[in-house]
Amino acid sequence: MSSVHRLLLRHPRGETPIFLGAGALRVAGELLADWVRDRTLFVVTTPRVLALHGGALAPCREAAACTVVLEVEEGEAAKTLERAGELWRRMLAAGGRRDSRLVAFGGGSVGDLGGFVAGCFLRGIAVAQLPTTLLAQVDASIGGKTAVDLPAAKNAVGLFHHPELVVGDTSLLATLPAEEVRSGLAEVLKMGVIADPALVGKVEATLERLLAADPQALAPVVLAAAAAKVRLVAADPEERGGDRRLLNFGHTLGHALETAAGYRGLRHGEAVAYGMLFALRLARRRGFDAALAARLAALLSRFGLPPLPPLVADEVLAAVARDKKASEAGPVWILPRALGEAGAVAEVAAAEVAELLAPFLAAPFAAG
Amino acid sequence: MSSVHRLLLRHPRGETPIFLGAGALRVAGELLADWVRDRTLFVVTTPRVLALHGGALAPCREAAACTVVLEVEEGEAAKTLERAGELWRRMLAAGGRRDSRLVAFGGGSVGDLGGFVAGCFLRGIAVAQLPTTLLAQVDASIGGKTAVDLPAAKNAVGLFHHPELVVGDTSLLATLPAEEVRSGLAEVLKMGVIADPALVGKVEATLERLLAADPQALAPVVLAAAAAKVRLVAADPEERGGDRRLLNFGHTLGHALETAAGYRGLRHGEAVAYGMLFALRLARRRGFDAALAARLAALLSRFGLPPLPPLVADEVLAAVARDKKASEAGPVWILPRALGEAGAVAEVAAAEVAELLAPFLAAPFAAG
Repeated sequence: MSSVHRLLLRHPRGETPIFLGAGALRVAGELLADWVRDRTLFVVTTPRVLALHGGALAPCREAAACTVVLEVEEGEAAKTLERAGELWRRMLAAGGRRDSRLVAFGGGSVGDLGGFVAGCFLRGIAVAQLPTTLLAQVDASIGGKTAVDLPAAKNAVGLFHHPELVVGDTSLLATLPAEEVRSGLAEVLKMGVIADPALVGKVEATLERLLAADPQALAPVVLAAAAAKVRLVAADPEERGGDRRLLNFGHTLGHALETAAGYRGLRHGEAVAYGMLFALRLARRRGFDAALAARLAALLSRFGLPPLPPLVADEVLAAVARDKKASEAGPVWILPRALGEAGAVAEVAAAEVAELLAPFLAAPFAAG
Repeated sequence: MSSVHRLLLRHPRGETPIFLGAGALRVAGELLADWVRDRTLFVVTTPRVLALHGGALAPCREAAACTVVLEVEEGEAAKTLERAGELWRRMLAAGGRRDSRLVAFGGGSVGDLGGFVAGCFLRGIAVAQLPTTLLAQVDASIGGKTAVDLPAAKNAVGLFHHPELVVGDTSLLATLPAEEVRSGLAEVLKMGVIADPALVGKVEATLERLLAADPQALAPVVLAAAAAKVRLVAADPEERGGDRRLLNFGHTLGHALETAAGYRGLRHGEAVAYGMLFALRLARRRGFDAALAARLAALLSRFGLPPLPPLVADEVLAAVARDKKASEAGPVWILPRALGEAGAVAEVAAAEVAELLAPFLAAPFAAG
């Protein structure tokens, strides 16, 4: 029996099949090869991913008329307008056409950048997301969000550009650095808290094996988290004020922490973990069960997060105010009401955030 | 009786009302004001348009919470990734949000750039197109195409981002330079040749008055051309191989001429006029009526086009090969079969284009 599962995301532009599990790249190999056959194939990836897993793309490269590998730097550093511009110029010089194909082969940043570059090249070419990190497999690769950063705000420039295909091969996770696994597990836990109580229990019960990237422990957790993401995205594909917003649990402060830290020192998932801890403090003030909040904080304390970098509270607050999810009325906070259930709360005064922020930055794991 | 007409473009993302005619900005003024009410309003425009017609935006500015005017250079020069990046940074610094509004107030380049900037800011904010040139009113503002240029190819980076509203006030055309009127009339004639034989007759009968921007002569011609564009776009909203492609009549060579000339010396419509002349030569070889081709060439000779700049045929050919409408199989040519009827022809050998191009560049109005 194959350990590869197939999900389907329906969205306004069509539907995206999602292959997930150990060996997914092999199982989806023929489909991928057919999709690129006799076309120019652009591969956006990093040197590390290429060195570790480049062989998995051999069937694609053989089917394509020609393959142009576009290597970019790791992580958020690649998500700039300048890098996107460089890739577009190279794609044009290499003879890229409207029916050329682009594959984003890497973590969340490669997926964001690759998706954006595909979405705007000649007004949009087809893209496949081949996520190689836990975070990208359960979250970033699903749902069509693409973006690059501006100095003042993460993901400030981008568009919705749904992939034609997502292939998350969990066997690639074995080579993932421990901090990348931890970062992805934060997004997994997020999915559990907002949409799947059983997933929270699974993370709690197997956290040490998960952190060690144990494939048996990871497989069910990746599948459950991705399935939750698919459900939330399908209900609100372009985040028009519905369920998709719930995925921003932990992200309002998380993004601001990343911005204030200059996108250095904290991985995305680590920032989201701290963001969830802060959101739990706001939630407790609105009636969220104290014991449950303590249980989640205890679970997050077992993640072994790096300490928060030294941050100036006012700079974090300014970044919160600039959050791109904010409406003209101000930022919206996603706060849990119960396990597996959350809501968007617009009525969080800036003064309340300011009051809670400094003590939080000093002692994030303390009872809020 | 109002001389303002209302068209409606249905597309996959909703529908776009289009107000056209003398006084359209006044007629649509309340709708526009409601649309920006209490929000941040970004106005992408040029110093010239602002000086001549800025007053027409007063009701919008009064309704908006605040208005940020983003002035850009005239024409194709504004359509760069660098300019887009600068606007995004300024919008972010000015407190732009997902529910902020952007108005593109100017010609086709302002519309292309403004639409692109709106389409990618925070993954897309709503835009209204307020075209001030003939070309933009009949063509560029309708249909959701947005783009910036790369040095190697025009419109190489962009997306489909349909405006919420288009308001083409033909009374603004009175201040248009003669060469801008001529450029727009080339797109009008294009629409007639591919989709509306009566429009060709109207242009033929009133060309001198049209070139002089006579409002009585322009009104019916603007309306007919815009209506033809709406019909073709509605039938194939994102140019997926259907009728919308016909709008590229004259554009395969036209874009290449612009590119080879470094976007200088030829306005877009003027380049399209030459592109149509060349396409007519290809069409004649495929059975298009010789007398009709001669009639259209004679009509175009009355436009008073500037002479073609000195161009190297090989550079023009290379630009044709890079055309973003091309598939991996090569560029597609739109060729008329009869008046008001055209088709996409993929089987034009590069050798045939090469053979015809040098004599065409030397004597574009000669019988092909």
